[in-house]
Amino acid sequence: MIKLTQTVKKGGCAAKVPALILKEILSGVRFPPTIEGVLIDGKDFDDAAIFKITDELSLVQTLDFFTPIVNSPTDFGAIATANALSDVYAMGGRPKTCMAILAAPLGLLEPLVIQQVLQGASDVMSEAKASLVGGHSIDDDTLKFGLSVTGLVETNRIWSNTGAKVGDVLILTKPLGTGTICAALKKEAYDESEFTEAINSMKRLNNIIDYLDSEQIAAIHAATDVTGFGLAGHGFQLAKASKVSLSIKHSSLPLFNLSYTSLKDGHLTKAHRTNKEYTVSFLHFFNIDENEQQIYFDPQTSGGLLLSVKPSMAQAIVESLSSRFSQTSIIGSVVDQDENYVRVE
Amino acid sequence: MIKLTQTVKKGGCAAKVPALILKEILSGVRFPPTIEGVLIDGKDFDDAAIFKITDELSLVQTLDFFTPIVNSPTDFGAIATANALSDVYAMGGRPKTCMAILAAPLGLLEPLVIQQVLQGASDVMSEAKASLVGGHSIDDDTLKFGLSVTGLVETNRIWSNTGAKVGDVLILTKPLGTGTICAALKKEAYDESEFTEAINSMKRLNNIIDYLDSEQIAAIHAATDVTGFGLAGHGFQLAKASKVSLSIKHSSLPLFNLSYTSLKDGHLTKAHRTNKEYTVSFLHFFNIDENEQQIYFDPQTSGGLLLSVKPSMAQAIVESLSSRFSQTSIIGSVVDQDENYVRVE
Repeated sequence: MIKLTQTVKKGGCAAKVPALILKEILSGVRFPPTIEGVLIDGKDFDDAAIFKITDELSLVQTLDFFTPIVNSPTDFGAIATANALSDVYAMGGRPKTCMAILAAPLGLLEPLVIQQVLQGASDVMSEAKASLVGGHSIDDDTLKFGLSVTGLVETNRIWSNTGAKVGDVLILTKPLGTGTICAALKKEAYDESEFTEAINSMKRLNNIIDYLDSEQIAAIHAATDVTGFGLAGHGFQLAKASKVSLSIKHSSLPLFNLSYTSLKDGHLTKAHRTNKEYTVSFLHFFNIDENEQQIYFDPQTSGGLLLSVKPSMAQAIVESLSSRFSQTSIIGSVVDQDENYVRVE
Repeated sequence: MIKLTQTVKKGGCAAKVPALILKEILSGVRFPPTIEGVLIDGKDFDDAAIFKITDELSLVQTLDFFTPIVNSPTDFGAIATANALSDVYAMGGRPKTCMAILAAPLGLLEPLVIQQVLQGASDVMSEAKASLVGGHSIDDDTLKFGLSVTGLVETNRIWSNTGAKVGDVLILTKPLGTGTICAALKKEAYDESEFTEAINSMKRLNNIIDYLDSEQIAAIHAATDVTGFGLAGHGFQLAKASKVSLSIKHSSLPLFNLSYTSLKDGHLTKAHRTNKEYTVSFLHFFNIDENEQQIYFDPQTSGGLLLSVKPSMAQAIVESLSSRFSQTSIIGSVVDQDENYVRVE
């Protein structure tokens, strides 16, 4: 049986173009004009975009793809799909149509393996009640899979990363550590069964909206999904966009059993370094173990949603989500903006 | 100056997964259900999809990406963009939002080269009055670029490939031959200036809708863009979907100056073979030179639109398009279906 992670050099969101290089590249491009209807664009190449169709209805659009981070083709397809759909959920939308991005080494992989990737993907799309309406496939040196996704969202109920308010409570819906754990998985550093917890988490849809009532939904002031830039990077982006700072209580972070062990054993990716470079000047750690600091730079694949919510509703939201997202945790609060967009104590 | 085609093994639409392999793979997948609103899906991984928003307005969605087929980064970005937007035009829509798919070898290519790719892309999006609203970029072994595109189309005025009628006239809007010419370009087989004609054609938007009046637009019964599967493949798909056959007059095909020379000199891609395998049992040549037969299997990148139109309007449509698409030609007609979906005389 082929082990997909052995066919690639870099896995998952860790293969992203580093934020600083991307910024340099994009700074020199004269982009096309923003047409009428585009409420939020994602020129930073990462957030979902909003295109208004009517005053009631908008499109939420996102695109993501990557190389295998796990060995099972079915799991890989499922994770890539949950990861791609996540951005739609992070904006408060519901995914509707998906198009597949497939690059596959036809000489190396049996058609059955590619079928399994697509099956894993299809099963997660089915769960999300989204259709696969097209895509493009090429013969390539290494396997890559992902989706372009279009969802619908009520125009006046979009969760963006600009709405966090001082006093809000911060909630994270999934454990951190998929970056280091997938690096360890590729090296077969631990028993296979140890990886199951993280794999199951990455396969899980971020469809929190299906578990919340309307009052709880309205209490979410801002949301983002924690992916390749890690909690530090995405937290920084949310804080900056909302003109606030985030105060994170280190001991409250939800983690996989393996997360700190894997970091301590040195299973790091290039993204741990580049994410640190990206955020280090806007981040302050108060007395945090140096090894444990790495969890903030850990590139997540199909990570959880970071929510900034009305304090009085925080506990109810955590309780509603816990049936499906058992490690959903309150991890801190939103405070007045200062020179550190993210502080950890 | 880096020559992009020298950095890849296979270029452009020629790098597509061959149709027969794709069919085998897809046949084993249990796809997610088709949700309400999906009028046309693209489960064959190639056509654009239609998602109805209201009785008046639908989304037209498509996705395409590939490796460099030309040496200039700006030209490559422009061609990939014209190629991706083409499917929206082929359905009678107008592109609105684009998301970029970028895989780049960061160790090999200067950031400036990637900037130029994005600039070439942005300039064509500007021309199409479409916005770039996001995307995803990864560090990869070979450069790949493309777009996911969403356009809008009037729900009751969609051009699909099911509408061709017996008696219709067939129009092709661009010359054939980009597959063989790009293969020759990669081998530097001819003087650089000889390639300009094909490069300019591939950079050209298929925005024929902007050049037609409403009566001409209404006279278009079916349309498809001719891309990786060649005129034979896409003609076959259109004929089969419309339950008709296509009769093509070989001497009427629009060609680049270099097309037959390049084929005669043996500049072929794997897709020439796989496209022939895909269509050979549904195709009949009446006394056509064997070398010239290859033009039907030639994989097009950013190829023209194949239109099936009301006979009385055909000449007017050709005249309206000729200011922008100078080689637009009537290439045959639609006839009763028989065992050969495409016949060439």
